[in-house]
Amino acid sequence: MNSELSSQQVKDIGEQGLLERLQRFCPPEIIGDDAAVLETALGQSLVVTTDVLVDGVHFSNLTTSPEDAGWRAAAANLSDLAAMGASPLGITVGLGLPSELRVSWVERLYQGMTECLQKYNTPIVGGDVVRSPVTTLAITAFGQVNPSQIIRRSAAVIGNAIVVTGVHGASHAGLELLLHPELEQNLKDAERTALILAHQRPQPRFDVLPILWKILTPNSQLSIAGMDSSDGLADAIIQICRASGVGAVLERRQISVPKTFNHWLPPEQALKYALYGGEDFELVLCLPQELASALVQHLGEGAAIVGSITPGSTVLLHDEQKKFPDQVLNLSQGFQHFGQ
Amino acid sequence: MNSELSSQQVKDIGEQGLLERLQRFCPPEIIGDDAAVLETALGQSLVVTTDVLVDGVHFSNLTTSPEDAGWRAAAANLSDLAAMGASPLGITVGLGLPSELRVSWVERLYQGMTECLQKYNTPIVGGDVVRSPVTTLAITAFGQVNPSQIIRRSAAVIGNAIVVTGVHGASHAGLELLLHPELEQNLKDAERTALILAHQRPQPRFDVLPILWKILTPNSQLSIAGMDSSDGLADAIIQICRASGVGAVLERRQISVPKTFNHWLPPEQALKYALYGGEDFELVLCLPQELASALVQHLGEGAAIVGSITPGSTVLLHDEQKKFPDQVLNLSQGFQHFGQ
Repeated sequence: MNSELSSQQVKDIGEQGLLERLQRFCPPEIIGDDAAVLETALGQSLVVTTDVLVDGVHFSNLTTSPEDAGWRAAAANLSDLAAMGASPLGITVGLGLPSELRVSWVERLYQGMTECLQKYNTPIVGGDVVRSPVTTLAITAFGQVNPSQIIRRSAAVIGNAIVVTGVHGASHAGLELLLHPELEQNLKDAERTALILAHQRPQPRFDVLPILWKILTPNSQLSIAGMDSSDGLADAIIQICRASGVGAVLERRQISVPKTFNHWLPPEQALKYALYGGEDFELVLCLPQELASALVQHLGEGAAIVGSITPGSTVLLHDEQKKFPDQVLNLSQGFQHFGQ
Repeated sequence: MNSELSSQQVKDIGEQGLLERLQRFCPPEIIGDDAAVLETALGQSLVVTTDVLVDGVHFSNLTTSPEDAGWRAAAANLSDLAAMGASPLGITVGLGLPSELRVSWVERLYQGMTECLQKYNTPIVGGDVVRSPVTTLAITAFGQVNPSQIIRRSAAVIGNAIVVTGVHGASHAGLELLLHPELEQNLKDAERTALILAHQRPQPRFDVLPILWKILTPNSQLSIAGMDSSDGLADAIIQICRASGVGAVLERRQISVPKTFNHWLPPEQALKYALYGGEDFELVLCLPQELASALVQHLGEGAAIVGSITPGSTVLLHDEQKKFPDQVLNLSQGFQHFGQ
């Protein structure tokens, strides 16, 4: 890109000009009308989710390149679809932009978004670009799901095992490394890179779904409870318990964290990252013990049964080895831990 | 509402607390999961559109109450669905809010949105509330359409009549009256109120669709071209011509304006309001002459054939009485007229 082009600002080409530049990221047969038209498969239900991200609140040039901001925004919305058991159909992107913003910043944002979306065959099917004093990104994602395979927060039942589809805490660790480079002294380059990538390029877990349906086939009437761990593992389990009117016991030593944590963080801090760090975008699923074991085995490293659903409404953190007393988890702890 | 409640700010209850307060505007069976699940009817295509509105750019406390801002935002998105021939399924609402904003302002915004939505049986099925230095409203609307009834901008053919479903210019006149109350001296109260209401409470024209399908039944293979006139009548016709690779001739005296304009505005200014004012949210449809005549007759007052589709790519404003020379319309004129 020559320097004249890369220094171009939104005001130089206007919102309309920018929209035209962004059209190359969208399928030409879908855009260009008052609205986009999409086909859903026969017998599928429509699934819709939306997120708003604001510069300085949800992303920052300090820790996030525009490509990564785009990737993360797309991944977060796709993860909500995966957490419903749905496959993606498309997203719309609404942008509020200061007129001094560089056009190249917006193009890099779209580059990151489409890199993530292409991995899951998801088109950008529409959008809006408007003037705003602060860069704002509003994404709505829609997908489709077989009505018998909808994963709901409210479907957990007593006795269910709680499965996590991967390790927790990696994204928060990556963010800490970006904010405080001095923390990396006990890490190998590859370990540092892996944690930072977990923060910058999280992966929605659509890959879990076909494995889950395969395991469930003989019990296809079964409702699976679950959500994603975008706001932390503790939040996910508390939200599922609230919605299902049940409690849970988590086994402290079953909560899987990145291996790196073992020689890098004190165990208590590793646990806090895992429970409250957020943005790991794993799935937290509640299902009968046998099926849970089969799922964990198929998913491989990082996947684990971390606890079970109990009567009552309390979410307990338990230590089999009784070194730590039982601890009741609640949502405000996450905010305390990270001063949010 | 007591004064303690009405002075409550977003920071007093937090984004999560506000989301809980706003849930009463949403159907409880749909919200509360990672995403909303909706049913589409068999054989229908999904239609999606999105808009971002920013305080001080798209709405202002000077001319717009929060209820009206909410109504207008909902109406604009629904109108995009109507312009595709679709019926609405639901909307999502993403809000960026300064922490000092009053909670009552947000509730009044939702009140206005739901007043409009209820008229068209459309639920708010999801949303997001985040902190932002500037009040921002991102709406995504989705609907469904019979694939044979999709109205596209690109389907206009030479010889088609161009139909408007109602008068143009009323919304802009209403805005002018709000900004410059001195303009109302030649207007009766009822006339003033009607114009202001046209601005504050525009109506998406879903009512046109069943009439259109009824007229088309014997020719159901016919593709109808069209869009809404949200950015002005001139813009709509120019966009349709561009997308269809055709031109158009508009008859100056056929362009229907509110009757009030006749004794209130000089004819040239009335025409400018109609062509470039915008936000009337009428439908602009291109169809064979006979069907166009039947449609106008069924729609009644305000509906009119305003011109026809021609070869070439020029959009001409023509005067049958030859008092005015032919004039070529283009998009930049709208901006010139209103100094945007």
